[in-house]
Amino acid sequence: MAQQKPSIPKGTRDFSPAEMMRRNYIFDTIRQVFRTYGFAPLETPAMENLSTLLGKYGDEGDKLLFRILNSGDYAAGLSDGELRSASHISEKGLRYDLTVPFARYVVQHQGELTFPFKRYQMQPVWRADRPQKGRYREFYQCDVDVIGTRSLLCEVELVEIVERVFAALGIRVALKMNNRKILYGIAEAIGHADKMTDITVAIDKLEKIGLENVRAELLGRGLSPEAVDRLQPILELSGDNDSKLTQLRDVLACSETGLKGIEEMRTVFDCVARLGLAMPVELDLSLARGLNYYTGAIFEVKALDFAIGSISGGGRYDDLTGIFGMPDVSGVGISFGADRIYDVMTGLGLFPAELNCSTRVLFTNLGEAEQAAVLPLLRSVRDAGVPAEIYPDQARMKKQMEYANRRGIPLVAIVGSEELAAGVVTLKDMRTGDQRQVPFAEVAGAVK
Amino acid sequence: MAQQKPSIPKGTRDFSPAEMMRRNYIFDTIRQVFRTYGFAPLETPAMENLSTLLGKYGDEGDKLLFRILNSGDYAAGLSDGELRSASHISEKGLRYDLTVPFARYVVQHQGELTFPFKRYQMQPVWRADRPQKGRYREFYQCDVDVIGTRSLLCEVELVEIVERVFAALGIRVALKMNNRKILYGIAEAIGHADKMTDITVAIDKLEKIGLENVRAELLGRGLSPEAVDRLQPILELSGDNDSKLTQLRDVLACSETGLKGIEEMRTVFDCVARLGLAMPVELDLSLARGLNYYTGAIFEVKALDFAIGSISGGGRYDDLTGIFGMPDVSGVGISFGADRIYDVMTGLGLFPAELNCSTRVLFTNLGEAEQAAVLPLLRSVRDAGVPAEIYPDQARMKKQMEYANRRGIPLVAIVGSEELAAGVVTLKDMRTGDQRQVPFAEVAGAVK
Repeated sequence: MAQQKPSIPKGTRDFSPAEMMRRNYIFDTIRQVFRTYGFAPLETPAMENLSTLLGKYGDEGDKLLFRILNSGDYAAGLSDGELRSASHISEKGLRYDLTVPFARYVVQHQGELTFPFKRYQMQPVWRADRPQKGRYREFYQCDVDVIGTRSLLCEVELVEIVERVFAALGIRVALKMNNRKILYGIAEAIGHADKMTDITVAIDKLEKIGLENVRAELLGRGLSPEAVDRLQPILELSGDNDSKLTQLRDVLACSETGLKGIEEMRTVFDCVARLGLAMPVELDLSLARGLNYYTGAIFEVKALDFAIGSISGGGRYDDLTGIFGMPDVSGVGISFGADRIYDVMTGLGLFPAELNCSTRVLFTNLGEAEQAAVLPLLRSVRDAGVPAEIYPDQARMKKQMEYANRRGIPLVAIVGSEELAAGVVTLKDMRTGDQRQVPFAEVAGAVK
Repeated sequence: MAQQKPSIPKGTRDFSPAEMMRRNYIFDTIRQVFRTYGFAPLETPAMENLSTLLGKYGDEGDKLLFRILNSGDYAAGLSDGELRSASHISEKGLRYDLTVPFARYVVQHQGELTFPFKRYQMQPVWRADRPQKGRYREFYQCDVDVIGTRSLLCEVELVEIVERVFAALGIRVALKMNNRKILYGIAEAIGHADKMTDITVAIDKLEKIGLENVRAELLGRGLSPEAVDRLQPILELSGDNDSKLTQLRDVLACSETGLKGIEEMRTVFDCVARLGLAMPVELDLSLARGLNYYTGAIFEVKALDFAIGSISGGGRYDDLTGIFGMPDVSGVGISFGADRIYDVMTGLGLFPAELNCSTRVLFTNLGEAEQAAVLPLLRSVRDAGVPAEIYPDQARMKKQMEYANRRGIPLVAIVGSEELAAGVVTLKDMRTGDQRQVPFAEVAGAVK
């Protein structure tokens, strides 16, 4: 076989043991919180039929799907022209997110499920995006959703989950919330129900470009001067959530949908306030999130001490499963961005130091007799639940100590000829250099 | 969007919450043992370059690779003929196993790694095999390998890992071992070094077809009658490992490689014997395993109480990384078959009952005032680390109890108007039907 310089496809990554231990720390923390809130795990296949995926992410999304070439002789029986159309040579694709497979799963298995159905899902997704810093072609999503209830307690629960996850990870965050019904209500109230997106984008730019420029932009997008005048009090909203909602109620008095959105947010904020969370939860009218399927609450989480995009986000959707023929099933969910959370924790030095190595003790291997004495000791340490190793070869002491150092193993248990004669182990703390001797029978207890 | 009956590609599976909890139990158990032995996690991308994958699994394996269609306009600039060749329209494939990506990783990152490098990897692999009972197109492999040492302590450690994993899972197993050097030695000793595979296959059939038929088959495969005569004592080997190795030593006296294999096995068996494992570890000369890269010890694990193929297997390889230009790096590893282990545990009823649901308590939701009283109680229970839920809607009691039943939640915490007035929760054990009342302040302690 020819020699070759090995590499991996662009936009993909290997995760080294050090990275994996940090990533697993994040995943384990998130999973633990999901479980505490009664969410159960689900996994779906990496491949879905293209009929499941196509048309769910817009034209741009369709182009970013990774397609699987049909197995066997994909070209058999096809004309030259047909070979130029992906639909003839490919009928499966890699999942693009966890939401569409989840909707597909719920519809396919609706008869077996107990609703409300609370599930979490932590799996990789694939997108043929142009790779760039912080954007990958394979990345994990960590989604948590409850489907089959309109109860706003679910929104409250997601707020608590966000608080608990980031508190456990040590990341200070603020949770921004908005509501699609309020955004629609604003557009409706100023007489431009069709321009909800333009108006939201303009509100979003307020801090950056100032009130006058936002006014100009809205006029340029076809809003009437009167509509822009009516929008102005909304742009200038201030105060706490309660005060903002009170002001909004006056402006949206004529929009039934808008008033419903205000009521939803008030319920959620009241409930959250009673829980007394340390995390700030703020109404932010500039929050829109691109996903068209959201119909109620929208969430976005920002790290307070590190400049990066949102590290978690989600919302309420009233018809996710309608695309698969199961209408009127409301759900709400959020997704945690593992890669960005990893970057924040690395940037702020938040990973616990002991994550660098799970092995607590390395036993030396300094000769046949020493090795024979060490093996039962090693077994007793492992029996006690302490991750431990023996250096597999009878190498020089220096080489074995280097191995412990490079691996980040905190304790070396030395058994040389003197220790063997005395029936003791010399335990060396690799950080302080301190040494002490422990009888064979007490090793497991001493390293625990 | 058109309605469609959703489904998933053949040979793939959704894993429901109940299945996931059982699968995670298996994965967590295996992972915990791997960690206890000092192995560190690694993950590689789902996609590899086809140049990495092709030619590593034989012609049959190449055909079973799932290929990714090139992104963008895959047909641009290609002739009609080129479109009929997969190599022109596809340059990436899904990984087929974890071994080749591991070898690729070690070569690519050799400068950063500390050898011996001990890693485990638990990820799905994909094969375009014909789906059938127990054979899937997407399935997980759980591999553990140490690379960069020839120490037989690694073989011993893998034996211990097998014992510990299956003891923890409650599966009684026997570990069969063989050694490629012995197989080669046998072939060499009877003058047919080129017929190692034929001879091994024949030995394997001994129990099924009997000595005379094996003799006939070997003659049919071109072995001389003298060679078959010389093989006969090997076919009739009996006794414990030690006695078999002693008998073998006489037969293989003229094969240096064979004697080396005997010595290796004796070292491993002696070391294992001193550890006093409960699990039987048996020399089985019929064990060959198909993978050509094995060069020393070979392992296979059989469940003793359930009829199924091997549930774990592996071996020593001396040149896995040579295909990527890094020769002479010896390693040894084993792989655990999660799907078969799942089937054994299901068949023998070995999964703990509490795996059915991680939620311990469901709080009822019987009205506005009741809900307001329950939310802080629920939070206190979750603060205590107990997975708990509130029924999100104010539905009829019967519906809420049914939800708890169907989910398998063992405890329901009822707060109705009477409980609310008295400041107590009625805790109902869903299995026994027993009820007791607990003051609000004591709920978290009571359910813990």
